[in-house]
Amino acid sequence: MRVCGTIAEVRAVLAGEPEVGFVPTMGALHAGHVALVQKCREECKKTAVSIFVNPTQFAPGEDLDKYPRRTESDLELCESNGADVVFLPTVDEMYRGSLTTVHVTGPSELWEGAERPGHFDGVATVVLKLFHIVQPVRAYFGLKDLQQCAVLRQMVKDLDLAIGLRFVETVRDEFGLALSSRNDYLSSSVRLEASNLHRCLQACREALLRQPNNVKSIIQEGRSTLVHQGFGVSYLALVDPVSMQEEAPARTGLRLIVAARFHGVRLIDNIAL
Amino acid sequence: MRVCGTIAEVRAVLAGEPEVGFVPTMGALHAGHVALVQKCREECKKTAVSIFVNPTQFAPGEDLDKYPRRTESDLELCESNGADVVFLPTVDEMYRGSLTTVHVTGPSELWEGAERPGHFDGVATVVLKLFHIVQPVRAYFGLKDLQQCAVLRQMVKDLDLAIGLRFVETVRDEFGLALSSRNDYLSSSVRLEASNLHRCLQACREALLRQPNNVKSIIQEGRSTLVHQGFGVSYLALVDPVSMQEEAPARTGLRLIVAARFHGVRLIDNIAL
Repeated sequence: MRVCGTIAEVRAVLAGEPEVGFVPTMGALHAGHVALVQKCREECKKTAVSIFVNPTQFAPGEDLDKYPRRTESDLELCESNGADVVFLPTVDEMYRGSLTTVHVTGPSELWEGAERPGHFDGVATVVLKLFHIVQPVRAYFGLKDLQQCAVLRQMVKDLDLAIGLRFVETVRDEFGLALSSRNDYLSSSVRLEASNLHRCLQACREALLRQPNNVKSIIQEGRSTLVHQGFGVSYLALVDPVSMQEEAPARTGLRLIVAARFHGVRLIDNIAL
Repeated sequence: MRVCGTIAEVRAVLAGEPEVGFVPTMGALHAGHVALVQKCREECKKTAVSIFVNPTQFAPGEDLDKYPRRTESDLELCESNGADVVFLPTVDEMYRGSLTTVHVTGPSELWEGAERPGHFDGVATVVLKLFHIVQPVRAYFGLKDLQQCAVLRQMVKDLDLAIGLRFVETVRDEFGLALSSRNDYLSSSVRLEASNLHRCLQACREALLRQPNNVKSIIQEGRSTLVHQGFGVSYLALVDPVSMQEEAPARTGLRLIVAARFHGVRLIDNIAL
């Protein structure tokens, strides 16, 4: 496995490779990332992983400084899961003198976009840069960040990128909590309680499938349950995963999305109906 | 020569070509464009030209509807100058459902950027799309649009595009008027008088080289001359061609830029010191 710190180096290593698959990450890798790397290895001749805590996708006051960083164990995980190349740039390497931003409207506007100003501009811009650097034929993202998937799908289509996006279903711990690098912020007892978030999504899904015309009251009830369990709910909604607009009545293909603060940590999750 | 109307078609035609050079145009081709095509043919194995009057780079109230369109003679000119592929998309093919914009700050902000809101977002976005579609190793632009060159240089650097930009010196008519598709709007007698714009730039350059510390008064004098000759001057300035910021004292490497309205037509020009 080659570890590259500069754009020039990763370009040189990947030059002439006909079928590179790409897994962009912010490090602090967990089994969700491993699932992306494995899928990539199944489908592509070479697997490139990037590890870069992208400052431009953190809104003011967010957790950029304390975001978990553990490069050594991340590299071991990449190696043991068969990654061929890891791109590990500095912030300076990525943004020295940079004055260009990609802005996607539409699917970026509600939910995370409304609460985290500039977040999706940061995501779209860094992913486009990484696509230009790595030049993959396919790129792999986790569905836990459903709205990110929607924004990137829109960007790839609008900018005519010849890159196939693969979205991989969320990996959960034994209690159902969606794996996230930010789970590091939770103690193990709190983490157990946090899995109520997923149970709430499951209960709402069952109710919605039984009563597809009752979206509003089922969502309202789910929200109340979460509040009673100690969650500070940002949103709980039934959306189209492409437009990220609310939809009713309930039907297959829609997804239930939730964001909530629990013991000071902002958690997001979603499930397919 | 292959003429392609769709993205899929031009991709298929260029697939596997190792060294494509690209000349993006808005059609109404003249000897300035021909110089770009010739340079491209000298340096690249295949020459692709796009002809697309990009609506998103016209500010509200500008000349989108009357912008000259003469596809048939444009295609003849491409063919006779040895272009291999012409990409000729519709607006719908390029922008159906599009919600993504590229925004470059810095060199885009003054001059044309200040007077034409959204213009450089439109330019950056369409050029990035075309780069993704054509996937050239080099792309060719005329220095007449100096600020456009600066914005695209910044975008290519910031987004890590592996594309070499080539900027080609302005082609002029026998009286010195910079060739531009918008010169079509001028009668031939007015066109002759319009070449005073270039003579003013030349006079300013000579004065600046003699008296490099007198930038302010020389520019002021040039401006007065233009006003006396009937030009509605937007700006006349000595700038760094990378940052597009005003610079003094005068030195080699800077460029004099001008924009002025003459008989209802907005003209721009620039020369190197």
